[in-house]
Amino acid sequence: MAHFINQRQFPIEWGYCDPAGIVFNGRFFEFFDWGTWSLFEAALGVPACDLATTFGIVGIPLVDARARFLGPARFGDVVELTSQVKEFRRSSFDVEHRLVVRGELAVEGRETRVWASRDATDPSLIRSQPIPDEVVARFQVP
Amino acid sequence: MAHFINQRQFPIEWGYCDPAGIVFNGRFFEFFDWGTWSLFEAALGVPACDLATTFGIVGIPLVDARARFLGPARFGDVVELTSQVKEFRRSSFDVEHRLVVRGELAVEGRETRVWASRDATDPSLIRSQPIPDEVVARFQVP
Amino acid sequence: MAHFINQRQFPIEWGYCDPAGIVFNGRFFEFFDWGTWSLFEAALGVPACDLATTFGIVGIPLVDARARFLGPARFGDVVELTSQVKEFRRSSFDVEHRLVVRGELAVEGRETRVWASRDATDPSLIRSQPIPDEVVARFQVP
Amino acid sequence: MAHFINQRQFPIEWGYCDPAGIVFNGRFFEFFDWGTWSLFEAALGVPACDLATTFGIVGIPLVDARARFLGPARFGDVVELTSQVKEFRRSSFDVEHRLVVRGELAVEGRETRVWASRDATDPSLIRSQPIPDEVVARFQVP
Repeated sequence: MAHFINQRQFPIEWGYCDPAGIVFNGRFFEFFDWGTWSLFEAALGVPACDLATTFGIVGIPLVDARARFLGPARFGDVVELTSQVKEFRRSSFDVEHRLVVRGELAVEGRETRVWASRDATDPSLIRSQPIPDEVVARFQVP
Repeated sequence: MAHFINQRQFPIEWGYCDPAGIVFNGRFFEFFDWGTWSLFEAALGVPACDLATTFGIVGIPLVDARARFLGPARFGDVVELTSQVKEFRRSSFDVEHRLVVRGELAVEGRETRVWASRDATDPSLIRSQPIPDEVVARFQVP
Repeated sequence: MAHFINQRQFPIEWGYCDPAGIVFNGRFFEFFDWGTWSLFEAALGVPACDLATTFGIVGIPLVDARARFLGPARFGDVVELTSQVKEFRRSSFDVEHRLVVRGELAVEGRETRVWASRDATDPSLIRSQPIPDEVVARFQVP
Repeated sequence: MAHFINQRQFPIEWGYCDPAGIVFNGRFFEFFDWGTWSLFEAALGVPACDLATTFGIVGIPLVDARARFLGPARFGDVVELTSQVKEFRRSSFDVEHRLVVRGELAVEGRETRVWASRDATDPSLIRSQPIPDEVVARFQVP
């Protein structure tokens, strides 16, 4: 059984790049964030901005993020970002992101996120919650 | 009668700069935002993050921003940002920002902001409010 | 005679927005920068990243930028950015940007930029240059 | 033998934060970048912007970055960033970053970077180089 995959294409803008003429590293983590929202929107069929209210959560906060930089992306490149959940656990999950530039893998990323809601007794606290089966099911492709 | 002036010094970081090796223009508007919060914090004696709750407002949203770029700022420069309110009107005000690099004025900015709170009958709407006299008074230096 | 107009659509991402839930002001100036590069690419038929080498310039540095914020843009909005040169002068020009959200004008911007090259005798200096007639002609729509 | 440690304190700004009211993840990787430049500047006694020319390199490009997010940082927090090289290898090295907020470790990061210069025969290529012994020595504290 395969996992749902989402792809986005976008241009590398001048303002993403640093004095070395390549995309500044922090921007790639922004791209991964775009990728995760797009993936959830596509898999769940719910606009990303309605995800929290639809599922009664505060969001899917990030607890770990990583990137390997294999090649540069420059102003004028059009990049393809492929995102998919690699593993669902009880209340957390891993999203893998692959960014291809001019046909080559340029950046590989992984985010670990938590399915989180407010604590019932103290709403100032955020608690991880079991990910609903219906959510996990939507990410599985027969 | 003079207006309260606030100054901040900070270094120009690698990640602020674009492939031309100079600070990307959008960053200066971030700097102006830093300057306005610091100015209000210093003049009112209230942490910027408590400004809204202290004065019963939602914030001081921006309605107009402008910058003139006279000279570059580069990685390694330490810049001095001077901010002051130039005019208080009934419910809006203008903040002037001057950014000095290596002794020369590099960027001159102006923000117009509004003293805003939620509408009493429809909290989804934001309304401008008269700026309290006590607030205006704090920005005046004898 | 009308001026060449360029349009781009893009989604508002989570990471563009501040704690008030609306796009942080500095981001709009990034959007304007995207708009200007896209406009020049479309009007001149040259990839934006090749603009400098094609025309023997260092770039089109910004000397003035302004925005009026009329309404908010939020996570999940798809915005339409319309950019056009409003006036070409000898060596500088004005680009107007209009950002429409949910059918309403949300932000109106204006950039003044310079057609610039390195000084022939001292390459560390940047000098404004007359904008070639062929460039201006490309922005005119019969 | 201990490794040189560098510390920086800075405030969390409004514009660093997302609609959840906490610092957006990409910003932490910017902070790590600040930390690495400051660390090298302090250990080597050379302004960060002169590092490349002083040592005949193009820079210290990032090949891997990682962060674990343990607690939030919010507008108004003053954070302390502690950075140190954990390991020097032949031509690459690891920098560890620890970000403390209100006395607690909030984010832990690790960057792997390369000591890089242009290829002697093809200057368009970037090659990793042996890190000079004098550089490594400066990071060792007796």
